Amino acid sequence: MTRIAVFGTGSWGTTFAMILAEVGNQVTLWGRRPELVQAINDGKGNPDYLPGIELPRGLRATTSPAEALDGAEFVVLAVPSQTLRGNLAAWREHIPERAVLVSLMKGIEVGTTKRMSEVIREVAGVPEARVAVVSGPNLAPEIAQRQPAATVVACTDEGVANRLQQACHLPPWFRPYTNLDVVGVELGGAVKNVIALAVGVAVGMGMGDNVSAMLITRGLAEISRLGTALGADPHTFSGLAGMGDLVASCTSPLARNRTFGENLGRGMTLAEVTAATRQTVEGVKSCESVLELARKHDVEMPITEVVVGVVHDGMSPKEAGMLLMSRTPKPERYGV
Amino acid sequence: MTRIAVFGTGSWGTTFAMILAEVGNQVTLWGRRPELVQAINDGKGNPDYLPGIELPRGLRATTSPAEALDGAEFVVLAVPSQTLRGNLAAWREHIPERAVLVSLMKGIEVGTTKRMSEVIREVAGVPEARVAVVSGPNLAPEIAQRQPAATVVACTDEGVANRLQQACHLPPWFRPYTNLDVVGVELGGAVKNVIALAVGVAVGMGMGDNVSAMLITRGLAEISRLGTALGADPHTFSGLAGMGDLVASCTSPLARNRTFGENLGRGMTLAEVTAATRQTVEGVKSCESVLELARKHDVEMPITEVVVGVVHDGMSPKEAGMLLMSRTPKPERYGV
Repeated sequence: MTRIAVFGTGSWGTTFAMILAEVGNQVTLWGRRPELVQAINDGKGNPDYLPGIELPRGLRATTSPAEALDGAEFVVLAVPSQTLRGNLAAWREHIPERAVLVSLMKGIEVGTTKRMSEVIREVAGVPEARVAVVSGPNLAPEIAQRQPAATVVACTDEGVANRLQQACHLPPWFRPYTNLDVVGVELGGAVKNVIALAVGVAVGMGMGDNVSAMLITRGLAEISRLGTALGADPHTFSGLAGMGDLVASCTSPLARNRTFGENLGRGMTLAEVTAATRQTVEGVKSCESVLELARKHDVEMPITEVVVGVVHDGMSPKEAGMLLMSRTPKPERYGV
Repeated sequence: MTRIAVFGTGSWGTTFAMILAEVGNQVTLWGRRPELVQAINDGKGNPDYLPGIELPRGLRATTSPAEALDGAEFVVLAVPSQTLRGNLAAWREHIPERAVLVSLMKGIEVGTTKRMSEVIREVAGVPEARVAVVSGPNLAPEIAQRQPAATVVACTDEGVANRLQQACHLPPWFRPYTNLDVVGVELGGAVKNVIALAVGVAVGMGMGDNVSAMLITRGLAEISRLGTALGADPHTFSGLAGMGDLVASCTSPLARNRTFGENLGRGMTLAEVTAATRQTVEGVKSCESVLELARKHDVEMPITEVVVGVVHDGMSPKEAGMLLMSRTPKPERYGV
């Protein structure tokens, strides 16, 4: 029986812990708040993030990092991206020597422009063969309701990727595919939020399915250009962690980034939309980091540029659309 | 001023003729039915397929193929796929010697499993440098309402692709990208209908956005495997004629194939769905041709297989889902 620690009781951390437990692993879920940990251990599920969902009996929760990490072969990290560095520094000493660290997070660190796996390697001092990433079209509430889903498990070490695939493969419910391209898988998850903002703006302006499909496709082209410049395999972006996650985030009316963009497209000001939004909208924070990365590597990202313009620099959605549609005609594939 | 003939007064043929005319080309639209041709020439627009849309003044219509083809540099074909062979044989003698034939059609010929550009070359007896394909996320009613859209203009001859790009480039409304991969562009348009049926079935069963994104992504993977076996460039499938068109057809509630699938997923029988459907649903006809092509080339297409099973062989949607989710775990990229 494989021991696995999952850090973070948000909807995706909890759902992924459910899957791991149902496969037959011995899973301990770490949470910051004692009352939520207590609720989980009392069989009340996770009322804050997955109300109404029954958790597997074998799934235990704790507020003690040392207890969660005791004997863990996999350490799954599902905390907010911007808190990872501080959290991991505190947990580091308890991480078993040969454990594999698994990121479920989809963000780019503000200030450093580092991907989550880079932060993990830096803070935990582990080699890349011991860091894996799970990413794909995985809206947690749907998976928690036992709808089928597929994902990508990436690690530069194929053996580790295969072990993790086995640990979370739960047919016919949850289907993980392996991929060796950590950079690509991770970048797809982080940049899709920016494109989802753009699609939201267009939808808010009353645009239809051609425009969404165009933004999704050309958005993926710019994600691929950036990824290729950073050493990713361009094929990754045609996969579940690339177009898959992008399509889910851009078409689901419940996706946060898309909704935020929709409100901007309807004519609300940034201050009004921000006031109306309860949770962190990752793309709003990271679009500037993504553009910074792109400029460092001389990569053209026209959609990301107008998203930064609309979100941070007072560009009107209409002006953004005109700018995008008035670029010089091009071959479909360039810069990759 | 470039003279262009457009054959077919359906919604897409008419809309594409509008774009060509507004760019400044001299466009003649050929239609079969005198009363519709008359309505267009009387300034009444196209009441049958684009009600309420005003057509550009310069756009003329005729029922005479010879008149439409007189001096035409581009001959745009937008008739139902299965009627192309017969129609083109009748028009052949009037086609100017150096004209480029452009296909807007998205089908595979039943019986021969030929793509439309293959049928064109065979029937018109022209070299591949004189056949181009236009394909992308182009739901005609949205474009006719002057929403922006992008498309792909493909020809093995780069000079011809560039000329056609110029002829239909109408910023900020319509943005064509060039691509030399005719096989890939054409195949994307034909096979997406099969995947849209699968997404429809899932939606009809109550599945959410993860499942749609998974089917779209893994559907594109099987389109890419088939395309690669047929000599296409796999990168084409990450573009507008691949994922772009696929995303539009799988997410638009108005797309015909998706709607057909949705009714099957809700438990209606094939006979009931067929009876409730007024127009031809291309995927229902071509899923078997696509599977035939795949088997000829030893390509695995698991989603296409279950679509054929559900549509033609009485497989239940639930069984189809179980089959797909219970395949052996795999690396994300194989067979390409």
